[in-house]
Amino acid sequence: MTKLFHRIDSCEVNCAHLDLFRQTRKMSSHVIPPAPEYRFASDNNATVHPVVMEALNQANAAHATAYGDDPWTAQACSAFSDLFGQQVETFMVWNGTGANVLALATMLSPAGAVICSDSAHINVDETGAPERILGAKLIDLPSTGGKITPDQVRSQAHALGVVHHVQPSVLSLTQSSEWGTLYSPTEIANLCDAAHSMGMTVHLDGARIANATAALGGNQEALRSFTIDAGVDVISFGGTKNGIMYGEAVIYLNRDLARSAPFVQKQVTQLPSKVRFISAQFLALLDDDLWLKNAAHANAMATQLFEQTRHLPGVLLDQPPVVNSIFPVLPPEQIESLREWSFFYDWDAHAHQVRWMTAWDTRPADLDHFVSGIRHFIH
Amino acid sequence: MTKLFHRIDSCEVNCAHLDLFRQTRKMSSHVIPPAPEYRFASDNNATVHPVVMEALNQANAAHATAYGDDPWTAQACSAFSDLFGQQVETFMVWNGTGANVLALATMLSPAGAVICSDSAHINVDETGAPERILGAKLIDLPSTGGKITPDQVRSQAHALGVVHHVQPSVLSLTQSSEWGTLYSPTEIANLCDAAHSMGMTVHLDGARIANATAALGGNQEALRSFTIDAGVDVISFGGTKNGIMYGEAVIYLNRDLARSAPFVQKQVTQLPSKVRFISAQFLALLDDDLWLKNAAHANAMATQLFEQTRHLPGVLLDQPPVVNSIFPVLPPEQIESLREWSFFYDWDAHAHQVRWMTAWDTRPADLDHFVSGIRHFIH
Amino acid sequence: MTKLFHRIDSCEVNCAHLDLFRQTRKMSSHVIPPAPEYRFASDNNATVHPVVMEALNQANAAHATAYGDDPWTAQACSAFSDLFGQQVETFMVWNGTGANVLALATMLSPAGAVICSDSAHINVDETGAPERILGAKLIDLPSTGGKITPDQVRSQAHALGVVHHVQPSVLSLTQSSEWGTLYSPTEIANLCDAAHSMGMTVHLDGARIANATAALGGNQEALRSFTIDAGVDVISFGGTKNGIMYGEAVIYLNRDLARSAPFVQKQVTQLPSKVRFISAQFLALLDDDLWLKNAAHANAMATQLFEQTRHLPGVLLDQPPVVNSIFPVLPPEQIESLREWSFFYDWDAHAHQVRWMTAWDTRPADLDHFVSGIRHFIH
Amino acid sequence: MTKLFHRIDSCEVNCAHLDLFRQTRKMSSHVIPPAPEYRFASDNNATVHPVVMEALNQANAAHATAYGDDPWTAQACSAFSDLFGQQVETFMVWNGTGANVLALATMLSPAGAVICSDSAHINVDETGAPERILGAKLIDLPSTGGKITPDQVRSQAHALGVVHHVQPSVLSLTQSSEWGTLYSPTEIANLCDAAHSMGMTVHLDGARIANATAALGGNQEALRSFTIDAGVDVISFGGTKNGIMYGEAVIYLNRDLARSAPFVQKQVTQLPSKVRFISAQFLALLDDDLWLKNAAHANAMATQLFEQTRHLPGVLLDQPPVVNSIFPVLPPEQIESLREWSFFYDWDAHAHQVRWMTAWDTRPADLDHFVSGIRHFIH
Repeated sequence: MTKLFHRIDSCEVNCAHLDLFRQTRKMSSHVIPPAPEYRFASDNNATVHPVVMEALNQANAAHATAYGDDPWTAQACSAFSDLFGQQVETFMVWNGTGANVLALATMLSPAGAVICSDSAHINVDETGAPERILGAKLIDLPSTGGKITPDQVRSQAHALGVVHHVQPSVLSLTQSSEWGTLYSPTEIANLCDAAHSMGMTVHLDGARIANATAALGGNQEALRSFTIDAGVDVISFGGTKNGIMYGEAVIYLNRDLARSAPFVQKQVTQLPSKVRFISAQFLALLDDDLWLKNAAHANAMATQLFEQTRHLPGVLLDQPPVVNSIFPVLPPEQIESLREWSFFYDWDAHAHQVRWMTAWDTRPADLDHFVSGIRHFIH
Repeated sequence: MTKLFHRIDSCEVNCAHLDLFRQTRKMSSHVIPPAPEYRFASDNNATVHPVVMEALNQANAAHATAYGDDPWTAQACSAFSDLFGQQVETFMVWNGTGANVLALATMLSPAGAVICSDSAHINVDETGAPERILGAKLIDLPSTGGKITPDQVRSQAHALGVVHHVQPSVLSLTQSSEWGTLYSPTEIANLCDAAHSMGMTVHLDGARIANATAALGGNQEALRSFTIDAGVDVISFGGTKNGIMYGEAVIYLNRDLARSAPFVQKQVTQLPSKVRFISAQFLALLDDDLWLKNAAHANAMATQLFEQTRHLPGVLLDQPPVVNSIFPVLPPEQIESLREWSFFYDWDAHAHQVRWMTAWDTRPADLDHFVSGIRHFIH
Repeated sequence: MTKLFHRIDSCEVNCAHLDLFRQTRKMSSHVIPPAPEYRFASDNNATVHPVVMEALNQANAAHATAYGDDPWTAQACSAFSDLFGQQVETFMVWNGTGANVLALATMLSPAGAVICSDSAHINVDETGAPERILGAKLIDLPSTGGKITPDQVRSQAHALGVVHHVQPSVLSLTQSSEWGTLYSPTEIANLCDAAHSMGMTVHLDGARIANATAALGGNQEALRSFTIDAGVDVISFGGTKNGIMYGEAVIYLNRDLARSAPFVQKQVTQLPSKVRFISAQFLALLDDDLWLKNAAHANAMATQLFEQTRHLPGVLLDQPPVVNSIFPVLPPEQIESLREWSFFYDWDAHAHQVRWMTAWDTRPADLDHFVSGIRHFIH
Repeated sequence: MTKLFHRIDSCEVNCAHLDLFRQTRKMSSHVIPPAPEYRFASDNNATVHPVVMEALNQANAAHATAYGDDPWTAQACSAFSDLFGQQVETFMVWNGTGANVLALATMLSPAGAVICSDSAHINVDETGAPERILGAKLIDLPSTGGKITPDQVRSQAHALGVVHHVQPSVLSLTQSSEWGTLYSPTEIANLCDAAHSMGMTVHLDGARIANATAALGGNQEALRSFTIDAGVDVISFGGTKNGIMYGEAVIYLNRDLARSAPFVQKQVTQLPSKVRFISAQFLALLDDDLWLKNAAHANAMATQLFEQTRHLPGVLLDQPPVVNSIFPVLPPEQIESLREWSFFYDWDAHAHQVRWMTAWDTRPADLDHFVSGIRHFIH
């Protein structure tokens, strides 16, 4: 699998003008429909939920001790313990790559390796941050739709105790996966069993754990079923893709593994000073199940987009989404026109497969506009 | 120099209750004055400036491409180029440690070392992030008040070309320093000359560059005089301590050094997805010289605190502050009572020296309350 | 592919008694033939060639400056330049893993990755030394018989310039490969072209470069045809597996890449103090083509072993060896008896495939004994 | 302290001609005495002891399993256990830097730092190998004659538990030190107590542990008194500087720390394939106390050199050596003439201090020649 991102020259990457992607073209015979204001490129292009925004404004009151000794952080940690039904250790970090690096850094044993899917974010989309910061190998297993199996994990047992090979130490799963697929709670439990029987621990990259939870039942029990009940040790719990401005949480269900985390968190540059502003966002997100409502909406919008585009000429789509992304194959010569009208990412450029993604803030009207554009540019 | 931070048990660090530091004690004979609402512990305990907060709210409009391809980021990069009077390359990152690590990672040559002051933040206060992520040695030179000299830099030239020694590669200066001291523009120019003559490049840790600029003239010319005009190559340009919620900027005055920065930024976990929210804050900060006004106020408040406490019994203070911190020596047996009333950090516990720090939001009334408390607890 | 090594408990690994593997078993009906004195386990189990041993004895004369400023090293470096027909930069190192790590450390660009075969020694058999010391990802391509293709290399070009992906920077080829296969000079030239066109450089892991050269012509021209003439930039030139006691050479055909090598060599623990003893061995090896004679003998013995065992009952062998190893599939229940009688390694335990390897010192009589044993234990 | 090594251009470092250092100059008025054949530059310039050389020749018999499963290694490990009077875990490695890196890599806890003397080899003379491979900070304490004190160690306790600081984890001592000084057994015991009381473990860099043992009693009891009895956890046990060709041993007196060592050894490039040749050398060295005899001779020669030069005009020497090096201050304008005649290293170039070092093979006649040369060139 090859993910190609359509990007401008890297050195300009932080400073480039959005205009590039805003250009529209005169078409010869039809009127071009208006582009959706809220696009279908990525859930990290989305806005901040107004309740979260309000929480940020409210948290901006008086001084608060930095680095986590503040009441918002205490409450947010407590809220996560409530969510999982037992005392967990929670660390607020900046971003998903940082969450994964912190989690893995505290989980890896000496000469240890991380087993993951070949399409895992840590393997493909983090520019080698794990290898650089952990100094460890990722053993990337071939996957179908981003998912791996207990047998694949067990097949790595041959290396255990052999001094010439890295030692499988952490199994990292992604829920939901980069392909928008889900492990069932039983599948995760079986993977955890395989890993634990080999002396490994289990990390869950939950950048989209809310979408997964929404799809698997939409409540606390659903969350617990594929995490704490299944045997997961540490979670990267995503927030940024689900309606907050910035911030992820590393949650140690297995508290023993958290012993060095406060130090390692600073060492890997993931200790914010004004932590209260991340904690306040998570408090807003966890309150009244906003995190699940946001995710459920994104999921529903993806299903709707699938239904409205699956039969369009030129759009090849197979199965319906379970979370918030669909991966159509399009006629190669028509992709760029559509993209220029409303930006989205390539998924597998060789196969002319792209990714359309919904978010917590996707509006039905935008969806209608987007479908109109697809009808216009793809045929 | 030994910096002791008064902290609770590390494993609880993110979740601890502020209450610990809020306890007040009954005193036998006097009425305890009310503690200041805005404390004197650290400028990273401060609030977000309302103009910055408003900018965050404004930036929360529609979708924006992640990772920097958005109009706020384009404008903020442009604003930094204007500030320095030439095209510079700017990268928005999460925090100070991250800014320093990104800058140094792109500056270091193979087997290269960083020369810095022994009290530099990178050397003392980043939990070894530079060593871990850079894999490089910091050569920490003994300093007076955090400052080092061109002769000290040149004394490291003996190692150049010797295969048994790390190769001095980057000189990292801090302006203003952890001790609240400043290099003059001429001093920095001389340090840059020494470094460049040895084939090194120069990094400026400007976590408090605004305070330094305010103290050295308070305008663009002052900033340029000790940075671009003096020969500095790369700056960690601080925002978090000067009225924003989160975010720093790594600014390459020497653009050649930025070539690998877009990739390394992601690799060291310092590429935010929703960059627009950092850029919007910097735009607000740079607009109408807000960054300098904030810093000038913090500096002025420190001077005022110095003037109002220097003659108090039990308070030993020598020279007036140039930026926003003072370092009194206090009677050891009275420090904890004062701290419990209004939290602040130890600076050198062995010498009973503490740090009081002002911020952009320090209010005269809080300062008065704090001085009353000092009078009450210290004698 | 899964390589399983039959090893005793790791913690005892340096101290274990050979006896474990020397035990013979009573067989019910036949007389067990005598085990070969020189085994077929690995070319690194072999002895030191007497001419090399004599060179070590001769080099033990008077004092010599350490770390390479000695006449043996000067001569050996010169001999390597002669061998390649132009000035090359040569560094004597301890072992193969060290040679690879030094070479790659000096070749990698920031955020750079190494492309290699999935069965490459650096990927499978070095316990993650590259990831730990380089902090870089290995992109391991699926291979047939250890060989990869220019198209596979070019398929990685999609990542170039994308900040979320590691940047392909070095192509590492192995000649001869772990599977005992060879690239033709043209194949290597085409791989080098593909790599160079993507801005990459090319490393050749030549732990068995002598066996490859012997198989491809057996002279200097053969060596040059698949290295310097084909466009290879840096070679790990093996010695240990070809009749010397210890030592490998990292040879920079592309001298620009050697600039930081003297420093990095020390930094990665690969700078010997008494270098003269490695240099003296290479001088002996290069003199009068001893390196090629040793390798040619090992190759010929493997061919002979293949011929004498290919038709034996229970032994499944397909194509004849080109260098010094064969990979028979054996009846699973009979493997351990044979191994206990004369040790060898598993290659793919799931497929019941083992590796038999010849060396510079394999004697026809030992080969006869080994074949007798195979006849005895396998059927 | 500044150690300057007189070396030629680094890029040529492995290939340079010794001749540079062999040039002699016509002197105006005197006949230049013959230069010593065995010089006084370094004990790593010395020859291999004939008994060791013979052991290498003897070990070159038949095949032996690589990576340590051979009878020589089993015996050598056993001999080390005998030496220390209890079961220890021993790993044969290539060189001193490698020994230190392996030891420290297995000892460090997460976010841990190494405390050492500012003149420690790991801090000054290993080109940052520890920082690169360990990713850890060295906290280098100012030392007198290379020695540090328990109070200095305890002064680092302030960092324990503070998330912003690296966590002191390993104390690394050097015996004998780079300055040719010794800790008494009691001093080491007190240092170990200080370290252990802070939760740290203790590493001893014993590149010259034989010279130390010879000076402190010259028998097994002396060795044990400052190592196992004093509380040292892990030793880098030197061989190369004491009459062997190559090889050091990492010895875990605290066997718990050895658990990951077999894997880490390979990962840091320090697992030799033909280990038997290192083990055979150590067997020869340990047999009949050869290691102590070698060291005692070197020590005695240094004392004799001191006695014969201390009163010479132009030679400034203070206290007699306890091991095998002396550090005279010489007239700056005369140093180069003497060095060209018989090479030695600068120690502190600013102070015009050089290092003269004896070895196991220093001959009285060479010593006489050297003293004659000093008389000739220095006055």
